[in-house]
Amino acid sequence: MKKVCIIGGDTRLKTVKHYLEKQNFFVNTLGLYPDDKGDITLSDILILPVPTTRDGKNIFTPLTNRVIPLEEIYKKTNDQLILCCNYNFKNRNCIDYNTLDSYALLNAVPTAEGAIKIAIENTDFTIWQSNILVIGYGRVGKILADRLKNLGANVTVSARKPKDFAALEALGFSSINTEKLPELYLGYDIIFNTVDALVLPDNTLKNLPCSLLMDLSSKGGFNLEYAKSLGLNALNAPALPGKVAPKTAGRILAKTVSELIRFYN
Amino acid sequence: MKKVCIIGGDTRLKTVKHYLEKQNFFVNTLGLYPDDKGDITLSDILILPVPTTRDGKNIFTPLTNRVIPLEEIYKKTNDQLILCCNYNFKNRNCIDYNTLDSYALLNAVPTAEGAIKIAIENTDFTIWQSNILVIGYGRVGKILADRLKNLGANVTVSARKPKDFAALEALGFSSINTEKLPELYLGYDIIFNTVDALVLPDNTLKNLPCSLLMDLSSKGGFNLEYAKSLGLNALNAPALPGKVAPKTAGRILAKTVSELIRFYN
Amino acid sequence: MKKVCIIGGDTRLKTVKHYLEKQNFFVNTLGLYPDDKGDITLSDILILPVPTTRDGKNIFTPLTNRVIPLEEIYKKTNDQLILCCNYNFKNRNCIDYNTLDSYALLNAVPTAEGAIKIAIENTDFTIWQSNILVIGYGRVGKILADRLKNLGANVTVSARKPKDFAALEALGFSSINTEKLPELYLGYDIIFNTVDALVLPDNTLKNLPCSLLMDLSSKGGFNLEYAKSLGLNALNAPALPGKVAPKTAGRILAKTVSELIRFYN
Amino acid sequence: MKKVCIIGGDTRLKTVKHYLEKQNFFVNTLGLYPDDKGDITLSDILILPVPTTRDGKNIFTPLTNRVIPLEEIYKKTNDQLILCCNYNFKNRNCIDYNTLDSYALLNAVPTAEGAIKIAIENTDFTIWQSNILVIGYGRVGKILADRLKNLGANVTVSARKPKDFAALEALGFSSINTEKLPELYLGYDIIFNTVDALVLPDNTLKNLPCSLLMDLSSKGGFNLEYAKSLGLNALNAPALPGKVAPKTAGRILAKTVSELIRFYN
Repeated sequence: MKKVCIIGGDTRLKTVKHYLEKQNFFVNTLGLYPDDKGDITLSDILILPVPTTRDGKNIFTPLTNRVIPLEEIYKKTNDQLILCCNYNFKNRNCIDYNTLDSYALLNAVPTAEGAIKIAIENTDFTIWQSNILVIGYGRVGKILADRLKNLGANVTVSARKPKDFAALEALGFSSINTEKLPELYLGYDIIFNTVDALVLPDNTLKNLPCSLLMDLSSKGGFNLEYAKSLGLNALNAPALPGKVAPKTAGRILAKTVSELIRFYN
Repeated sequence: MKKVCIIGGDTRLKTVKHYLEKQNFFVNTLGLYPDDKGDITLSDILILPVPTTRDGKNIFTPLTNRVIPLEEIYKKTNDQLILCCNYNFKNRNCIDYNTLDSYALLNAVPTAEGAIKIAIENTDFTIWQSNILVIGYGRVGKILADRLKNLGANVTVSARKPKDFAALEALGFSSINTEKLPELYLGYDIIFNTVDALVLPDNTLKNLPCSLLMDLSSKGGFNLEYAKSLGLNALNAPALPGKVAPKTAGRILAKTVSELIRFYN
Repeated sequence: MKKVCIIGGDTRLKTVKHYLEKQNFFVNTLGLYPDDKGDITLSDILILPVPTTRDGKNIFTPLTNRVIPLEEIYKKTNDQLILCCNYNFKNRNCIDYNTLDSYALLNAVPTAEGAIKIAIENTDFTIWQSNILVIGYGRVGKILADRLKNLGANVTVSARKPKDFAALEALGFSSINTEKLPELYLGYDIIFNTVDALVLPDNTLKNLPCSLLMDLSSKGGFNLEYAKSLGLNALNAPALPGKVAPKTAGRILAKTVSELIRFYN
Repeated sequence: MKKVCIIGGDTRLKTVKHYLEKQNFFVNTLGLYPDDKGDITLSDILILPVPTTRDGKNIFTPLTNRVIPLEEIYKKTNDQLILCCNYNFKNRNCIDYNTLDSYALLNAVPTAEGAIKIAIENTDFTIWQSNILVIGYGRVGKILADRLKNLGANVTVSARKPKDFAALEALGFSSINTEKLPELYLGYDIIFNTVDALVLPDNTLKNLPCSLLMDLSSKGGFNLEYAKSLGLNALNAPALPGKVAPKTAGRILAKTVSELIRFYN
């Protein structure tokens, strides 16, 4: 039986532990519970948290604040399978699960729900009958557009690929070209950005009549501080799954991790 | 041209004012803006706020805190049309717009969105894939069930009329009988009550495994304090439209009021 | 144990027989199978077919062509429960199940599917992206509008009651007033009528640009022959459930009948 | 101004002609209308029909039965842009528009509607409440699954990629692995195949309890004759867009073609 060690992480990693134990894995932890003493050297598989590190030096251990340097992983591993998030251990047998389409796609669901919650909170009108622009038709854009339409909004999605425009038309969405955003008058009540690139340059921000401008991308699709300085109701909302639905996010992580392990064996 | 006087109220009544003025009504206000001096006697139509009174003595004037006794309306009116909310002026030409199906039905939309926001906030899982029970298939129940299903929840609705069970089946919902709730094991993640009657007696509360129990009715469908004392994550959320979407709620009120006035002329 | 006798009818009544037998009723038939000899006098409950009679004289027996006069029912019954459809036995303990909201509402589902099938067949374009008018927001109108919207059509519904307009708005439909249909330019690709009254007078038909005009009502919402003479692609499609989905229609009938019997006991 | 010549084809190509003329192209035809005399040599762009040829020798000209050998195209062209369908002119500047994702995706809509029409016609029950399996989550599978779910069916989709399983879960579908179809008991009322490979081997067909088995793929996902010989209600339904919605299919083709021309200039 394969031995698994979970190192650091928030409540999501606790869900992973329970889930893997139900599947008869032998699971230790290190830095997840007070005084836990998982042994890296003796484990076949290491599971590192979301994100694996925040400072680039130590593993993210918000529940115990234990100091576990990334360096320690290097020292104590050899050919074990290391599952990590937004990080890559060089010369190790390492998979960044955050890059998996299936993981990102399922996480788009709690992201969309969180974005909707924040939108309801930060506007004085309903999603219903609002004119909403979703920038980007990737994983988050797809699910968010679907949910907003289902709540009765008039949803326009910006995309770039011909096949995405076709899919949007088949599913009943209006669409515009992401590349033309700077040239258009964006008369929407709410704008959500999901694209990791500068899609709304400063000049465009100057003429935005929208009541809420929310950035869901990790790198930012516009200059947030400048948007605020213009008086726009602008905010960014990264990393929603762990915040609005840690239990669901934990289940999604557990599922992803357990499939990776199963394929590996 | 008919003269309208709006008395008291929150921002929704300001929306009513703008909306009616666009339709060429002559609109005065009293107790809505600082120092406004609308004249009741000279008006053909009086519009009273949501709710018309909170203490049973004075009109609800949250924006100015002006003291305008209900008694004053009696004194200064004769055969004018009085539109009010949850109150009835005896021996006057009075319509309680809160009793209108169309008004209540449209308000069900901001209510449903508010309930969804609160549910996302107060659970650690997604609406998606949750098992949810909506008690009651009236105005709020209908819209809330529709929205929850559209967000990917497994929704069961409790109802009482054969035609409601048929409608629920045609629209793809599971259903149970409201009268049998006390006898059933209610294994749901979230329960929303929309019924103004004791649908969940104390004994039933004792065995509820749900993670969130929310009361959207005005009179309460269960003993909230008792539910809390049992450790249930229970809360009530009355009067959501004015809180989560005052602008939309104002537009709904304006539309209702302007149709009443048009029919009256 | 109650004895049931089913008299006449098409395959739907066979489904009723099987369904009731599963619920441990003792069921005889008369005129449903060749040489069947159910005894009216000895039965506690009589189930008559959809429709109970076509000629006003004899019971509808399409599968056996047996001649069973309505008069015979009168002669051989006393205080038995008689369930019939679109007919009423005077001075008998009789329920016309066709008038039940729940029965009509469930039948609206096969009706809507049949109407959609006929529309796809009789147009050279898709339901998707079509502009469609559904006249009437009763049982059939509600379900048909829902299904058409779900297939990607732009759906407008005509209604008359304020609460129906509110419901339509909350659910994202455009709406117009049925009473104003004769005055409006009805620029729709497809028009479905579900109302049992003359909603489209001859003068209105003259200016209809629609590609398909389908009447789903039983009494007719326009002059079909006149519409055809104008070159319109007009047709009526009554009694769809028994035609497009006899098995589902049989199950709906069985469910309705068995609930009536249960309440009666 | 670019000169376009449309050669052969059904009514869809007439729609293409009108559409391109509206965009100020100069359009000739050859073999589309009686006695039309478009000149291949003088044209900058040739548009060939759906499909370009049926016999591998002559262009498909169902409306005029004119004989136009493929060889003639070779002889009279040099560096013109040739748009064709399911065919490739070697050593010519040729694009097979049938291979474009966007074209195929939009055509999935009339395909799905046609498949639904045929399913309603060939079953005695409703789509609503049916258990349906859609094999394949490509263009047609995606749209068909969406529409069936929207009509109230319980839809399971078979797929192969992890990201497709994730998308299906996020959108509320059940899913199974296409590769495991032969091992599973497929207890569905209706099965639609959309995959161009043998997904249902003969042995699997022997145990299928389904009421309707429809093949929408071009190459066939099972042995149709064998399925029929087993008494299964099996049929194939290729090339639906041109049959059930030629006008929409023409509009989709016109849009695709005009975008190709625009990019080419």
